[in-house]
Amino acid sequence: MTIKDVWGQYGEELHRVELQIQENLKSDVSLIKTVGRHILQSGGKRLRPLLVILSSKLCGYKGESDSLLASIVEFIHTASLLHDDVVDGARFRRGKPVAHSVWGNQTSILVGDYLYSKALNLAVNMKNQRIMDTLSETTMAMSEGEVFQLMKLSDPDISEEDYLNIIKAKTALLMSASCRIGAIISKVNSFLEEAIAGYGFYLGMAFQLADDILDYKADETKLGKSLGKDIEEGKITLPLICLLRNGTQKEIKTIKDIITSEKFNKNALRYIIRLMERYRCLHYSFNMAKGFIEQAKEQISIFDRCDAKDSLFAIADYVISRER
Amino acid sequence: MTIKDVWGQYGEELHRVELQIQENLKSDVSLIKTVGRHILQSGGKRLRPLLVILSSKLCGYKGESDSLLASIVEFIHTASLLHDDVVDGARFRRGKPVAHSVWGNQTSILVGDYLYSKALNLAVNMKNQRIMDTLSETTMAMSEGEVFQLMKLSDPDISEEDYLNIIKAKTALLMSASCRIGAIISKVNSFLEEAIAGYGFYLGMAFQLADDILDYKADETKLGKSLGKDIEEGKITLPLICLLRNGTQKEIKTIKDIITSEKFNKNALRYIIRLMERYRCLHYSFNMAKGFIEQAKEQISIFDRCDAKDSLFAIADYVISRER
Repeated sequence: MTIKDVWGQYGEELHRVELQIQENLKSDVSLIKTVGRHILQSGGKRLRPLLVILSSKLCGYKGESDSLLASIVEFIHTASLLHDDVVDGARFRRGKPVAHSVWGNQTSILVGDYLYSKALNLAVNMKNQRIMDTLSETTMAMSEGEVFQLMKLSDPDISEEDYLNIIKAKTALLMSASCRIGAIISKVNSFLEEAIAGYGFYLGMAFQLADDILDYKADETKLGKSLGKDIEEGKITLPLICLLRNGTQKEIKTIKDIITSEKFNKNALRYIIRLMERYRCLHYSFNMAKGFIEQAKEQISIFDRCDAKDSLFAIADYVISRER
Repeated sequence: MTIKDVWGQYGEELHRVELQIQENLKSDVSLIKTVGRHILQSGGKRLRPLLVILSSKLCGYKGESDSLLASIVEFIHTASLLHDDVVDGARFRRGKPVAHSVWGNQTSILVGDYLYSKALNLAVNMKNQRIMDTLSETTMAMSEGEVFQLMKLSDPDISEEDYLNIIKAKTALLMSASCRIGAIISKVNSFLEEAIAGYGFYLGMAFQLADDILDYKADETKLGKSLGKDIEEGKITLPLICLLRNGTQKEIKTIKDIITSEKFNKNALRYIIRLMERYRCLHYSFNMAKGFIEQAKEQISIFDRCDAKDSLFAIADYVISRER
C-alpha cells in the first residue's frame, strides 16, 4: 500500500473533511473566507485530518465526529502556518506565494488568530473534556516551542536535544494529538490510546526531520521553494548540528560565521552541502528519521492488522520517502 | 466612591490576581517570562480582572477561582494587545515602548499566541463547560472583529453600525465575558447572569468610545502616546464618522483625502479637531458613551445595593471620565 492508495481509499472521508473545512470558514467577514481558502486549499497534504480518520478507524469508531475533529486539527495547523510564515518572513509555501505576501502581515496574524480561536470554539462545542485537554495542552506546548525556536535562532551552539524539543513542539505534538483524538472518540482503553498517540508522535518527529533534510537535498521544483531556507532564516536543524559536531575547527568557524553574520548565499549553501556529504550528516539525520518511523510502527503493533493499520504504515513510509 | 477607592478596597483580591499572573507566566522558555512580564506589568488598569472579582462578589461568590479566572481574562486581553500592537505598528502603549519595538514583531506574535493558548489551557483545566463556552465564543468573536476592523481600515464610508460592531468585538465582549464568568462561578440564575453580562457589555462599549474620543482630545502626557493615532493607523472612529456626516462637501473631500492618502500630519490633525469642535462630534460621541454607561448601570439595577455594586457604579463613572 502506498500513500496514493491511502488517499484513494479514504477519498470519501477526506471529502467530508473538505466540506467541513468550508463550513467552518463561513463568516460574515469576507476576508476570513478569502484568506482561509487561499491557505486551506493550496494543496496541503491533509496529513493531520488523515491521522484523525485513520486512528478513529483503527480504534473501531463508528460515529461521525471524525470529520469535524479532522477539520479542527487542520485549522490549528493552518493557523500556525500563517503565523510561522510571518515570523519566518517566508515568501513561498508549496510553490505558491504565502498569504502575507498577498494580503500583508496584518491579515496573516489576525486570520491566524481567527482560525485558531474558531478551532477551539468548535472543539468546545463538542463538550468533550478529554478532547479539550488534548487540544489545549497541544496548542500551548506548540506555541511555547515556537518561542523557544525563536530564542535559538542563529545560535550555533544549539544542542541536538534542543533541536528535538523544537521539532516535537512544532510537528510531533499535533500529529500525536490528531491520533489521540481518534482514540478518545472511539473510547478505547488508555493502552490503545497511548499506542496510537505514540505512533503520531514518532511520525511527527520523523516528518519534521525529513522536512529539515529536504531543505538541504530536495529537488527545488518539487519542493516548491528554494533550498537552504532554514539556515537563511537562522534555523539550525539536525544536519547542520551534526556538521558543527564533525567539521574541523576551521570549517566550524566558517559555518558559524555564515550562521551568525548575514553572509548566507548560494555559494555558502553549496559549501555547507558539500561538507554535509563529506561528514554524512544527511545520512545521520535520515537514519534518525528512519529510527523514529520504526518506533512509530512499533507503537501500533498491538493493534490487529486492518486497512487503517496498513494505511498508517504506508503513511509512515511515505513521510521519510517524500520529495516535498 | 471613586475608582481609587475601588482599587484600594479590593487591593488584596487584586494582589492575589498578580500572584496568579506571575504563576501563569512560569515557563522553561525565558523569553516568555521576560516579554510576558514587560507587557503584563506595565501599568495596565486590571479592569477585566476587577470585573471578574466584582461580579463574583455581586453574585455572592465564596470560592477561590475568581483570581485564576481574573488572570485568564487578563492573559487573553494581553495576547490581543501584543498582536494589535504589531498589526497597528504602534510604538508606545501606556507611555512605554511596545514589546515588538524592543523584541521584534516575531516575539510579539509568538508570545501573544502563547499567552492566548495558556489562558485557554488554564480555563480548560477548570473543567467548567459554561466558562469554556463563554471564553471560546468571546475570543472567536474578538478575532473575527479584528479582521473586520482591518478590512475597514481607511474606509471613509464606514457606517456607525460597522464602528459599533468593531468596538463590541474589540472591547465590549471581553468585558461582558469577564462579568459573566463571575456570575457563572457563583451559579446565579440566568436573569442575574444576563444582567451582569449586560453591564460588562455596555461598560465596554463606553470604554472603547471614551478611548476613541481621548485620541482626539486627551492631554498627550497623561495619555502616554500622541494624539491622532487612530486616524494615522486608518481607524475611522465615531468622532470622525460624525464629522464625515456633518461637514460641508468641501470639508468631507479634504478629510477623505487625509484618510485615504498618506497626508496625515499635525496640521491635518489640528484641522480635523477644529472641525470636530465646530460640529460637536466629540460631544456627540461622548453623549453616546454616557448613554452606554446609563444602560450599564440600569442592567444591574436588579441587584441589591452592596460594596461590589457601588464599585461597579464607580468603575462605570470612571470609564467615561478618565484621562488615559
